[in-house]
Amino acid sequence: MSAAVGTSERHGAVVAVDVGGTTVKGMVRVGDVVLDRVVVPTFGAAPVVDALAAGGPALAAIAAVVDRLAAAAARAGHPLAAIGLCTPGVVDSPAGTVVVAVNLDWRDLPIVALLGDRYGVPVAVAHDARAAATAEIAARTAAGRDVTELVFIPIGTGISASLVVDGRLVVGAAGGAGEVGHVCVRPGGEQCTCGQRGCVEAYASARNVARRYREAGGTIDGGAEDIVAAVDTDPVAAAVWADAVDALAAGVAILAAVLDPAVVVVGGGLGESGERLLAPLRTAVDARLGWRPSPRIEQSLAGAGAGLAGAALLATAAAAPAPAPDHGTRRNP
Amino acid sequence: MSAAVGTSERHGAVVAVDVGGTTVKGMVRVGDVVLDRVVVPTFGAAPVVDALAAGGPALAAIAAVVDRLAAAAARAGHPLAAIGLCTPGVVDSPAGTVVVAVNLDWRDLPIVALLGDRYGVPVAVAHDARAAATAEIAARTAAGRDVTELVFIPIGTGISASLVVDGRLVVGAAGGAGEVGHVCVRPGGEQCTCGQRGCVEAYASARNVARRYREAGGTIDGGAEDIVAAVDTDPVAAAVWADAVDALAAGVAILAAVLDPAVVVVGGGLGESGERLLAPLRTAVDARLGWRPSPRIEQSLAGAGAGLAGAALLATAAAAPAPAPDHGTRRNP
Repeated sequence: MSAAVGTSERHGAVVAVDVGGTTVKGMVRVGDVVLDRVVVPTFGAAPVVDALAAGGPALAAIAAVVDRLAAAAARAGHPLAAIGLCTPGVVDSPAGTVVVAVNLDWRDLPIVALLGDRYGVPVAVAHDARAAATAEIAARTAAGRDVTELVFIPIGTGISASLVVDGRLVVGAAGGAGEVGHVCVRPGGEQCTCGQRGCVEAYASARNVARRYREAGGTIDGGAEDIVAAVDTDPVAAAVWADAVDALAAGVAILAAVLDPAVVVVGGGLGESGERLLAPLRTAVDARLGWRPSPRIEQSLAGAGAGLAGAALLATAAAAPAPAPDHGTRRNP
Repeated sequence: MSAAVGTSERHGAVVAVDVGGTTVKGMVRVGDVVLDRVVVPTFGAAPVVDALAAGGPALAAIAAVVDRLAAAAARAGHPLAAIGLCTPGVVDSPAGTVVVAVNLDWRDLPIVALLGDRYGVPVAVAHDARAAATAEIAARTAAGRDVTELVFIPIGTGISASLVVDGRLVVGAAGGAGEVGHVCVRPGGEQCTCGQRGCVEAYASARNVARRYREAGGTIDGGAEDIVAAVDTDPVAAAVWADAVDALAAGVAILAAVLDPAVVVVGGGLGESGERLLAPLRTAVDARLGWRPSPRIEQSLAGAGAGLAGAALLATAAAAPAPAPDHGTRRNP
């Protein structure tokens, strides 16, 4: 392992894996050069009958992704240096375990130990929203943007926010901070998967935009991004999107009142809708915050690939040897 | 000035002043012994025609309070050591100014310099909600209670929360964090002073409980505390209070979803309603958070006097000499 770690800064390849409920996305890169990418279905692989069996099909899919990416790196002459993963659910990063991930059928899965044993390199795991936030913060820092008081809202299958207060990510007492998707903004409104009615997520997540569009008789056969792209010509799409933006604005106004962020960053797939999202969202947030200045509302710099980019940052950090005490030695002679 | 400071630890008296829109409350104490207390109307004093004139009637009322408390200390043989104040509005504590306090008719008031010149002792000023939170945190720490992930909601004329994340008070980008009173929980509902409709504060603050009770035909001639005390026998009081608790529960559920605090502490005058508040509030919060564990909901330890207690802590800190470098000197021979 130490050989791989030792070479990581110059020649080692890091593998990043973004584990979702539908697909597992992977990327391998050396420095800033991406060598290969791969996407596989989360539940398309047969469970591996070995030490990985405890992780079921989802872990088998991850292993298939890492196998392929490590092979690509080897062909290019780069040894595997580290693996970074991000997953949904409750993740205990210091322990290297996924405490529970309902959609992946995992409970108390020691994913870092299992993959570390298989590949013989350092492995790190983090919650997907937090990994995405880390990537967004890194991208904003590189671009000279404000990262001190910030809310980052990736709009995906679900909606949750990463909160940055005084430059630090808010975790919460039980690791559950940021669940703005399950804030009620329409009492008695749409049923949400959480059991409540009228949640932000029930109107504004990609899954629910698509669901509400079809329930309203919409005919576009595509995902939420396709529906949003049609708002100028499809009245059903326009109505569903207006509802989504209004619910999201209510959530943003609540975050602004509670946390007073300087900037709200909207990301995820729908976050790349540009002014179709940002312009009406700014207007609706301003209308709800007439009593105080609105935060700036900006598009994500890390984009829809923020989770994978965050996993790559995790892997890079895991690959780097811990800073040695300064006893006059030089690490880069 | 240094003589007064030098004696503060043993014999100096600290004056604490809680400046509100209706009354100015003051207290003078030596160590833990309270020598005197005084309450005067904020707008009952004629403006002082001297250096304090810039502060209008509210600053004249403060001076009257400090004069009286300093005289009480002097009669008991204790020199004035420091003054701590808390005020509503936007307060710049390091600069010692109140940037704006609409209800006190102050703008860019250098209150620390003005009172420091008048009394010749150190003066400190802080925002009232933050001062109250400091007192609550001190009281909870002394009682061995959790203060790491905490929301403190004093229910007074208005409602705002102090947020403690990872042991630190959240300030916000522009000092405006914690405004849960102006979170909309009933779209299209009661008009709020902020211009929105359906805010938590429009239903649940002491002023609005009293207003709604009278508008609903209630006959008790008293404040919100008296109305709450009558809920078992007065159906109008019961209905208004149920509405208040429900709106407050919606706000607490939002704070729980966003911040995941371990505990929500309810304070202020109405916070001392005991189980008439806590029992239905816990039930209503649980009902809204079926999808995740609820935070503990506890009564404030600092109580309705938290603002004044926080101002006293400010004064005590201002009176204490900065820690001297350890050159072998002894401060308490």
